[in-house]
Order: sequence, then C-alpha cells, then structure tokens
Amino acid sequence: MNTIGHIFRLTTFGESHGAAIGGVIDGCPSQLKLDFDFIDSELNRRKTAQSSTASQRKESDRVEWLSGLLDGVTLGTPIAFMVRNEDCKPEDYENLKDVYRPSHADFTYEQKYGLRDWRGGGRASARTTLPMVVAGAIAKQILNEKGIKIYAEVVCMGDVELAKREGDTVGGIVECRITGVPTGLGEPMFGKFSAELAHAMFSLPAVKGFEVGDGFALAKMKGSESNDTFVNRVDLGLEDARRETNCKENSPLSYVPQSSVNITTLTNHSGGIQGGISNGNDIVFRVAFKPIPSLARPQQTVNRAGEPIEIAVGGRHDVCALPRAVVLVEALAAMVTLDLVIASIPFQSLPLTPKV
Amino acid sequence: MNTIGHIFRLTTFGESHGAAIGGVIDGCPSQLKLDFDFIDSELNRRKTAQSSTASQRKESDRVEWLSGLLDGVTLGTPIAFMVRNEDCKPEDYENLKDVYRPSHADFTYEQKYGLRDWRGGGRASARTTLPMVVAGAIAKQILNEKGIKIYAEVVCMGDVELAKREGDTVGGIVECRITGVPTGLGEPMFGKFSAELAHAMFSLPAVKGFEVGDGFALAKMKGSESNDTFVNRVDLGLEDARRETNCKENSPLSYVPQSSVNITTLTNHSGGIQGGISNGNDIVFRVAFKPIPSLARPQQTVNRAGEPIEIAVGGRHDVCALPRAVVLVEALAAMVTLDLVIASIPFQSLPLTPKV
Amino acid sequence: MNTIGHIFRLTTFGESHGAAIGGVIDGCPSQLKLDFDFIDSELNRRKTAQSSTASQRKESDRVEWLSGLLDGVTLGTPIAFMVRNEDCKPEDYENLKDVYRPSHADFTYEQKYGLRDWRGGGRASARTTLPMVVAGAIAKQILNEKGIKIYAEVVCMGDVELAKREGDTVGGIVECRITGVPTGLGEPMFGKFSAELAHAMFSLPAVKGFEVGDGFALAKMKGSESNDTFVNRVDLGLEDARRETNCKENSPLSYVPQSSVNITTLTNHSGGIQGGISNGNDIVFRVAFKPIPSLARPQQTVNRAGEPIEIAVGGRHDVCALPRAVVLVEALAAMVTLDLVIASIPFQSLPLTPKV
Amino acid sequence: MNTIGHIFRLTTFGESHGAAIGGVIDGCPSQLKLDFDFIDSELNRRKTAQSSTASQRKESDRVEWLSGLLDGVTLGTPIAFMVRNEDCKPEDYENLKDVYRPSHADFTYEQKYGLRDWRGGGRASARTTLPMVVAGAIAKQILNEKGIKIYAEVVCMGDVELAKREGDTVGGIVECRITGVPTGLGEPMFGKFSAELAHAMFSLPAVKGFEVGDGFALAKMKGSESNDTFVNRVDLGLEDARRETNCKENSPLSYVPQSSVNITTLTNHSGGIQGGISNGNDIVFRVAFKPIPSLARPQQTVNRAGEPIEIAVGGRHDVCALPRAVVLVEALAAMVTLDLVIASIPFQSLPLTPKV
Repeated sequence: MNTIGHIFRLTTFGESHGAAIGGVIDGCPSQLKLDFDFIDSELNRRKTAQSSTASQRKESDRVEWLSGLLDGVTLGTPIAFMVRNEDCKPEDYENLKDVYRPSHADFTYEQKYGLRDWRGGGRASARTTLPMVVAGAIAKQILNEKGIKIYAEVVCMGDVELAKREGDTVGGIVECRITGVPTGLGEPMFGKFSAELAHAMFSLPAVKGFEVGDGFALAKMKGSESNDTFVNRVDLGLEDARRETNCKENSPLSYVPQSSVNITTLTNHSGGIQGGISNGNDIVFRVAFKPIPSLARPQQTVNRAGEPIEIAVGGRHDVCALPRAVVLVEALAAMVTLDLVIASIPFQSLPLTPKV
Repeated sequence: MNTIGHIFRLTTFGESHGAAIGGVIDGCPSQLKLDFDFIDSELNRRKTAQSSTASQRKESDRVEWLSGLLDGVTLGTPIAFMVRNEDCKPEDYENLKDVYRPSHADFTYEQKYGLRDWRGGGRASARTTLPMVVAGAIAKQILNEKGIKIYAEVVCMGDVELAKREGDTVGGIVECRITGVPTGLGEPMFGKFSAELAHAMFSLPAVKGFEVGDGFALAKMKGSESNDTFVNRVDLGLEDARRETNCKENSPLSYVPQSSVNITTLTNHSGGIQGGISNGNDIVFRVAFKPIPSLARPQQTVNRAGEPIEIAVGGRHDVCALPRAVVLVEALAAMVTLDLVIASIPFQSLPLTPKV
Repeated sequence: MNTIGHIFRLTTFGESHGAAIGGVIDGCPSQLKLDFDFIDSELNRRKTAQSSTASQRKESDRVEWLSGLLDGVTLGTPIAFMVRNEDCKPEDYENLKDVYRPSHADFTYEQKYGLRDWRGGGRASARTTLPMVVAGAIAKQILNEKGIKIYAEVVCMGDVELAKREGDTVGGIVECRITGVPTGLGEPMFGKFSAELAHAMFSLPAVKGFEVGDGFALAKMKGSESNDTFVNRVDLGLEDARRETNCKENSPLSYVPQSSVNITTLTNHSGGIQGGISNGNDIVFRVAFKPIPSLARPQQTVNRAGEPIEIAVGGRHDVCALPRAVVLVEALAAMVTLDLVIASIPFQSLPLTPKV
Repeated sequence: MNTIGHIFRLTTFGESHGAAIGGVIDGCPSQLKLDFDFIDSELNRRKTAQSSTASQRKESDRVEWLSGLLDGVTLGTPIAFMVRNEDCKPEDYENLKDVYRPSHADFTYEQKYGLRDWRGGGRASARTTLPMVVAGAIAKQILNEKGIKIYAEVVCMGDVELAKREGDTVGGIVECRITGVPTGLGEPMFGKFSAELAHAMFSLPAVKGFEVGDGFALAKMKGSESNDTFVNRVDLGLEDARRETNCKENSPLSYVPQSSVNITTLTNHSGGIQGGISNGNDIVFRVAFKPIPSLARPQQTVNRAGEPIEIAVGGRHDVCALPRAVVLVEALAAMVTLDLVIASIPFQSLPLTPKV
C-alpha cells in the first residue's frame, strides 16, 4: 500500500534517516521531455529550510534519476528516482528511541510492525512526501499541456510567531483549485473525483479534514441555496452572471471556458463535481491540517514500558507545516487529475459506431 | 470502478428503475451463518418510506440471494444478491428526459457517457446504496464477533418541517464511532485508515465533507491543545482521567479496553488514528451531506439544447437524506474496518522467528 | 479473486446447483447496442447438450439482464446478468457428499474453505464458465468493429467414441488465432500479452498447459530456426514470401494487413508476441485440457473420514470438454485482447507535443 | 504494469545500460532479519559470466539497499534496492540503433512507445530480471521457515557447444518443484495457483510455454490414466504405494508429509493443483524457453526505414539462457507461493465461531 494511482502510479520508499527517499512512477506516457528545472523548483517549494516556520534540516534534495529516461525523454518504462538523505543526525533522536511522542506515529507503528525506525520518525516523517512532489511535477507538466492548471494556497493558519515563542505549533487549512478541467472525469460509484481526491489528501501527514466546494457549510444550507443553477454560457453573457453571484461570500465561483460545452452553472457550491464526475467548473477543495505534534515545550507521555516521562522534542522541526503543504496538495491533486484524465481517454476515443 | 475494498470486496450494479439493484461480495470468510434478520433490519433502516422526511417510493426491498451460500452458510465463494425494482414509475421522470436538474448528476453522466438513464436518476439514484447496506450488515456481523462495534448518528440537520412546507430540502452531518478497534489497523502511506474511510464516505451520494477526530477544528488549535497525551491505563486509574478530560467540549473521548495494550491517550483529538494507523481508541469521524437537490419548488435550469426551462421536480423524493444516511455511513465504515482487519491478520500471524 | 481484467472487467458468481450463475461486467464502453442474437449463439456453442460427447444436462441458458442497459444500449454502468439454474438434480450428487472424487476439486475446496457445495461440483463446475461466454461475446462484438477477430478450434482430441464405450473420458488441445491485432498491445514486464493470455486460459477448468507460437517446440530449435526474419511488406511482394515459407510444417504463419506498418515477419514462430508486445502478426496459442475426471467406470478413492471407497460417478457429464472449450478459449482471448486494446488507447492518443 | 503480486509485491525498474536496475518490495513481513549471504548467492546463480554458455558482461551486481531496513531487519515498509550498471558498453549497440533485431523486442517497443532505449535492449534486456532474484530470495527465506522449498533444474537443452561453434543459440525447458506446500493455496476462479504461476513465468524473457503436472501429455491420456487416486496415507503404507507407481515414466510423483491431512494421492499427474487449489502434493511445472534471438552468425532483417540489412549481433550474449533461467524460475515461483500463503492466512485464522 505504498502505491497511489490506477494508471499513472507512484510507488514511494524511504525512511527519514535511511539511505534514500525515492519513488517509481509507472504509467507515465512516453516521449515526454521532462522539465527538470520545473521539478527542482517544485522541490524547492517544499524544502525544509525555506523559512523561519520550517525545520532547520538542510538537504540538497538533488534528484538522482535511475531509470525510464533516454536523454531526458520518457521511455514509457518505470521512472525511478531517489534523493540521498545527507544531513542525517540520528543522534538527535537517540533519546526518543523508547518513547512514544504524543500524537506521533511512534506508538502505532510499533503496534503494527513490532518495531519502528526511531530515527527522525522513520517512514512517518514528512520527508517521505518528497517523491510525491516529483511525481506531481511531472503530472503537472502533462496537465499543463492540456490546459489544466492547479493552484493551492493557505487560507487559514495559526499565529506562527506566537507559537514559536511559546514553543508551540499551529495548524491550518489549504485550499486548492483545479482549472481547465474537462467534463466527465471521475467514476460515479467507487471512484468519484471527490473520493479520489479525499483519499489522496488523507495520505498526507497531519491531514484531518477534507471538503469539496462549500463542503461542511453545505450541511447548514437549504437546497434552494446550495443548488448550482445551470445556464447557457452563450446566451446569458457571462460577465453579468459573474457580477450577480460574486458577492456570495465563501462560495468558490468559477466559469470554465470549455469550448465544446456551452452549459455551465451560475454558482459552484458543488466544487466542480456532481455525482462524482467533473462538470467543467473549477474543482475546488480544502484540506485541514492539525498542528505539528513535535513541540519544543515539555510534554508528558510514556515510554515503551508504560512509565510516565517528560519530553521536549529536539530535532529540527517545523512550527507549521502549512507553507510546505501547499505544494504537496497540488502534487497529489495533479496526480489524481492526470490519472482520471488518462482513464477517461479510451472511453471517449473508442470510435464505436454511435448507436443512439 | 464499481468495486470497493481490497480483500473484502463489494461490486455493485443496478439503476433506479432498471430490472434490479444488487451486488457481489467477494472475499467473505467461509463458514459464516448469515444473520438474515439482521440484514433485513439494516435494510429497514434505510428504506425510503420510513418517515415523513423520506421519499414516498414503496419498495419491499426483499433480498434474493443468488450464490455463495449453502443452507445460509457462506461457502467462501462470491455472494451475489439482488433486489427487484418493483415500484417503478418511470413516467414520473419522462418530463425530465432532456432536462438537467440543478446539482444532480444528469449533466455530468451525459458528458461522461454520451447518454444517461433518465428514469429516476438511473445509476446516480440513492437507491444504488442498497447493496452497501447488505454488505455492511455482513461486515458488521463479523466485526461484532470480534468485539468491534459501529454507531452513527445525525449530529446536525436543517429544519425538515420548515423546508417541507417551503418545498425545500436540507443537509446535515452524521457522526460515526467505531469501538473496540485493535491497534495497528491501516497502512501508513497510501492506505491510511483515515484515507480509506474518506474514500468510502465520498462514495455516498451528496457527501461534500469528511473529518476525523476534531477535524477542521484542529486547524485552529495549537499543538499543545491538539496533542493526545499518552498515559498508562493501569497506573493512572481511568475513571479519574476520564473525569478530568471529559469536560473538554466537542472532543470525542474514549478509553478502549484492549487487554494486551496498557497504553492509551487522555484525549482523542486524533479520532483514534495516528500516522494513518489505529491507536486503540475509538475511531471517530464526521460526514457532511449537502441538501438533496430535488426541490418541490420551481427552479431554473437548461435542457440538453441549452435552452432555459423552469422545473419543479416530481417523483417521490426525500426532504432530507440524513436519517437514512446513518446506516449507510455505518455500512461503509464496517466494510472498510473489516477489510483492514483481514489485511492485518497475516502480518500479525506469520510466525516468523522473532529476530529483534 | 472472482474478477478478471484490468479495465474491461468481469466478476462472476454462482454455483452449479445454486439459484443462478451470472456476472457483472464493469468498464464496458457506453453507447454500444448489444447484439443479443450473437450472445445467444455463443452461449449455444457452449451449451451442455450439444452433442453426444457432452453432458446430458438440459439448461435453457436464457440470460436475464439486470442492469447497465437502456433499450439494449450500454450505459457505461455495470452490466449485470444471470442465468437461472433450472435443471438441477442435486439428488444425483447426494451420494458424493462425503466423497472426494479423484482429480476433482472436492478435496481442495474443503481444505481451503472448511466446507464445499457438493451439489454438482458447486463453484468448481464447468457451468461457472457461462458468464465468461457472455462477456466474451460482448468483447468480440467490440473487437469486431475494430477488425480484430478470434477463432479457436480443436487440434487434438482423444477417441471419444472409444472412451464413451469404456466409460472413460479424453482430453485434447485447442488452438486459437487472433487476427487483425494492432502492434503495441501488451505491457512489457508483468503484463505481457502472453502472460495475460496464460493467466486467462489457466482460469478455465481442466487446463494444464499453454504455449504461444511454436511454444514447447521452440525449446528444441536453434535460434537460426526459431527467429522470425523482419521483411518489408511493400518491397518484397507478400505472395512470394508466403509461398516460400508456407511449407514449413507446424509453424503458424501469418501476414497481417496493417496499413500503418509496412514491416512484418516472414514466419511467426513467436505467435505474434515479442517482448510481451504484439508485433502485428496473428496471435497464435494452444491450450491443453486434461480429460474430464468424472468417469462412468468405477474408481477407487476415499471419503472425508479417509476410508477407501469405490465410486462410479453419476450425474450428467461430458466425455470430452473440448468441443465446448472452443468458445471459452475464444471468449477469454477476446476479453484479454479488448482489455489490452483499451489500456493502450490513452498512450497512443495523448497528444503530447512530440519531443524526439 | 511493472508490479507483480497481490500482497507481497515487487515493482521493478531499470534499463540494461541506464543508471541502475532495481526494485521495491512492498508487503514484506516486518521483523525478518534478511539473509544477505543467501541473496548474494542467489544473484551469483544468475550472474552473466558464470559459464561458457553465458554472456561475457562483467557486473559486480552489488545490491545497494535504499530503504525498509533497520540493522538488516525488515521494518514492514517498502524495501527498495538497486544495482548500478557498471560494465556498460553502449557503443557495442550503436550500430543497432536503427535496426530491428529478429525476434527481439526492438520493433514492438518502438511500435508501442514511439521510441526505445537501444542500448543493450533497454528494458527488454535479460538484465532486468535481476530484481526478481532479490525478491525471490527474500520470499524463499520466509517460505523456508515454513518448510516450503523450491527447486528448479534444466530438463531439456539444445547442444550448446555445437551452437556456439555455429554462431547459433539454443533453447530448453526448466522443471520446477515446490515441496511442503500446504493444502488450500490458490483462488479457484481467476486466481488459480496454476494461473498465477503461468502469469509469473510468462513474465520471464523468452518464455513460450508453460505446463503443470503432466501438462500437454494429459491431452493425450484417458481419464482413467490421468486421474490421481486419493489414498489414506496412514492406512496404506506409503512405501509400498510409492514402489507400485514409481515406475510410471515421466510422471512427477510425490508424497508430501503434511501432518494435519492424512489424505494424499497415489500419483501426481495434476502437479499438486486441483480446481486451482493446492492439494498438498508437490507443485510441479515446466517452462519452455525459446533460443536467445541474438546470433553471432549473420541474419537478414530491416532497419527503421524498412530497408533490408544484414546483421551479426555483437555485444556480449549468452548462447543459452537456461542455466541462469533456473534461479529466475525459482524466484518467481517463490514470490507467487508466498503471496498465496499470505493471502490464505486470514481466512484460516479468522476465528469465526464454526457454524457447520
């Protein structure tokens, strides 16, 4: 279960302080000249030492490409890549070897596997999200050629400076928007676009909530408020419609230019997904992250023997994961979207003699 | 993509007004004497005509068992079952044949497939959730033998009576709690317990939000508030601990008696899942449902030609889906949990000579 | 594991003497008008009572369609279907309830599941191949529109008349040829065209051998004899080439007209597959079936208690499965081929800007 | 499709002359102390320069372990490993860049992907089987603890010395036997033990035939000859039975000591599999390999432009792949068997209250 995706698939491997972190991408189209500069710039967006809110670990994060390429062009075969773990300081974690840090995965990993890699969180470290950024960047590059773009941003975050002074941490919310999405993506029953996104986002560390469109707010609306009225793009005049509805607060509006379909909706409470299938509007969703559980201030917990112990987590940890979560949300959204795009092609292309 | 589950798998089929709705369960353990009364009682919980808030469609929902059983005992082979669609009134929908109902799946199905079954919503009808209840009941029966129980309830719902008078509909939130969950369930990277639950819940019609533990509220907490402190069950005296923390509002507390593990947490902000793996506490999550989009009052929309048209949806529809969503949430939670239980068994059972 | 296929998928269910035998097809393209006459004619080819070599069980084998269709046209949703088991005579098998018939699945099913459906072989009955014929017929219909055709025939069979007189049974070999196959089908590492075919064929009861092209005979050839020389279709003049090589005994030659590719091979020792991928020639393979293990003549065996017992199997059994195996081989070959065709489309269609 | 296995899964990557060849093993039990010496000894068995029949390429084949281990003990997380390609001589292949070598994958890869890695066969090189040996060795180590052993040997091979003198190559047949197999492994419909083995074996380069038990020979037997008579191990006295049947030529006999089951068969024409499920006897199968298509002697073929050209393949190639195929057959057999063992555990372990 270290693989995500149905056709465009990423398998990841690696522990925080093991030899390397990496991944294998299977199902990537051939003949694509990879944009290595773009991949690097995406990796930079998640790099740990990017700001005062983030961990002090220095990693060059230089991607080594192991297979699947000839002169930088994809062969259609698996693309394996890795990044060496260079700035390892396992000794920082030596004192945590037998301790279960509160709200970390130490206890659950040991319960599941009978042992755990205690060095820097092992497989549960946020560093294991690096391969997602690589695969996400490649997915974005392909989607970009098709006019599909993905933007995420932090829309809610705790007071980082205060938290830092207090030795505390904060959580927040990332909102993501996918534009240029064709209609018809997503499988209606157990592969809904929303379900695939939810599954992907909950694969990120610290994610505790996910909503599409107006999400939880919809639970308190009436149908007459939450329904998205269908309109004819051509007849109506889009600018007016936009003005009329734009004042509605907290509602992710959109008007996707999609040449072949003249039908759109005035509002986008649905977040671009109806019946699990994209309706041509922007896909809009939000992801809630809990605060990072590693606190500088002292905390009570127990060790493996069940004895109470006080810890102040050393290591080099973020105060807030949100700034670097943005690129992760985008990366997984890109992978999910590309996967659904690829899955939908044969059924749109199979030139069966139309019978209806 | 009409299949859910990895080992305990359900494939569903059927349209609202087709010949039948049904499913095939693969991976069910053999030698289980099915509790048909329990299955029927679960089906009764979702039946459409259960209350004034629900659809007026009368269905006997009598399950016909097609395979996989000998004298009511599972053979280990696929269990196929179906329910005939008896009270079909496709003529109620004849006028909607060329119309896209707002926030329904009419438009997206047609965009995806080039045609749609317009009779009662076809495959997008809530009636297609019936097979989930059957499979969920079987999963519950097995989990029950293992001491794992699942309860859901409506924790937030609009004013149904008002909405009915206004020809409107309302949404709401269902909270679900799984008790008796062993530690170690869930796969850490792309098969987290939370991710599997999120995927399953977003497979239900009208779901737009999902959160685990304190969910979105965690985004506004500090780490010192959201962390779940580990404690030793034996030494501490659970009753006192419970009293101390119980006053914390909106926090789903729990103390799971799990004989082999004496370590638990004072609070359960994490909803029983840390690093994607169950920690022995109750699994707690909430699901947000949008209002049913079929309104009795008139609405603007367009037809297939893109022409504006006013509709007042006939048919026999619910004012609120929440009462019958409860058993659906439980059913999918049961299937996900059983699937993870089965997946975890070999790795706990493989009697490798311990090497560490 | 009652599902075959990656995109075009068939899940089957049913026991020989249970309520029904059936299947669910997921991933079938929408807007296809099913050719029910063709499906019936294919079912007729496998029907049990077709000849003196076959079982005397009379089944009308009338397919009941449960879902996925509107006026006989596929909706893109799961197509469920079933056939009632009408001519059940479980009493014929009552005496076999506690006996393990030699080379049948009685013993292994009981070892695996702890119980078995003893009525007519239960899930291990050849009757469970019926759904494969339905799905295969639909696959054939789609492939036919693309110019891909599938023919199988018995190329080796024991002396049926002699065997019948002796109360014995015989086995044989079916050869299958797929014509009009485009180049590029099959995934090179663990999804080779040959591997997918092998897996499918070994899903048929009584199959004990499978070979592609010259198969086992290749093991005794030299490379200079077994290599298929590439030639240019245009320059060479195919008729001459054919004449020159046609005399080679036991070698499945073919010249596939494939407009876009002028390169073919003089011989087809490879059976149309090189490196796991179709090369445009006919796919040719052979499947070996063991004799039916149910003999009219007395046999020694043991019962559940391990006591020796002599049996003469009653019931209504074939002397030879080969005649009805032909359509099964074709059906599975069609499903595998269609699955690979669908899988290959997105990667041929994704209009990435060519970079090489 | 570069992944094999359902629970114990191997994903491979790498081209012959790319940076590295490697794999990721997911689903390996935790707490296993890897036997690196055994893995190295298995890799030695496949090493190219092992004998006069094999390729002259020198590779140290030193495995670099990238993840999933702590002090050599498995963590339950993905085990990634790789071997650098050191002795690359792409210039040996420069002249083959635009040529389609007969019966190689050059043509089909280009047809499928639009380009190919021409350096040493790229992904189609036999070197890509290296990761299978690593995963197979780990599977063997686990099976060995359970008393399951796997042996393969060459049972038929052409005249290597003669072929070498003539600049030709030869094929052959490998027979494999798995002993100590418990009853009940394999899924009856589309996951038969035989089908899983067939699929795995056809994933090896040059494989063109596969048979289980007496295989193709069964097609010419009568049921009375091919049936395996059940006997009671205890009552009968195995030594006598063995003597009585042992004289039967070409029949893979076996008497598996399996404590819990006293029932076995006198003969093993079925190769240990009945109805797709292991019956406790040895699993016996044979795999046919075609001759290596790279000949030292000149051959006719065409280049990318379709022009005729004569080639004599340089590079450093085997005369016969059989000696090194032995360990590959064992490795894949081990992976398949372990996968089925793991899959069967939960259903044997789920302590449901027996109801029958």
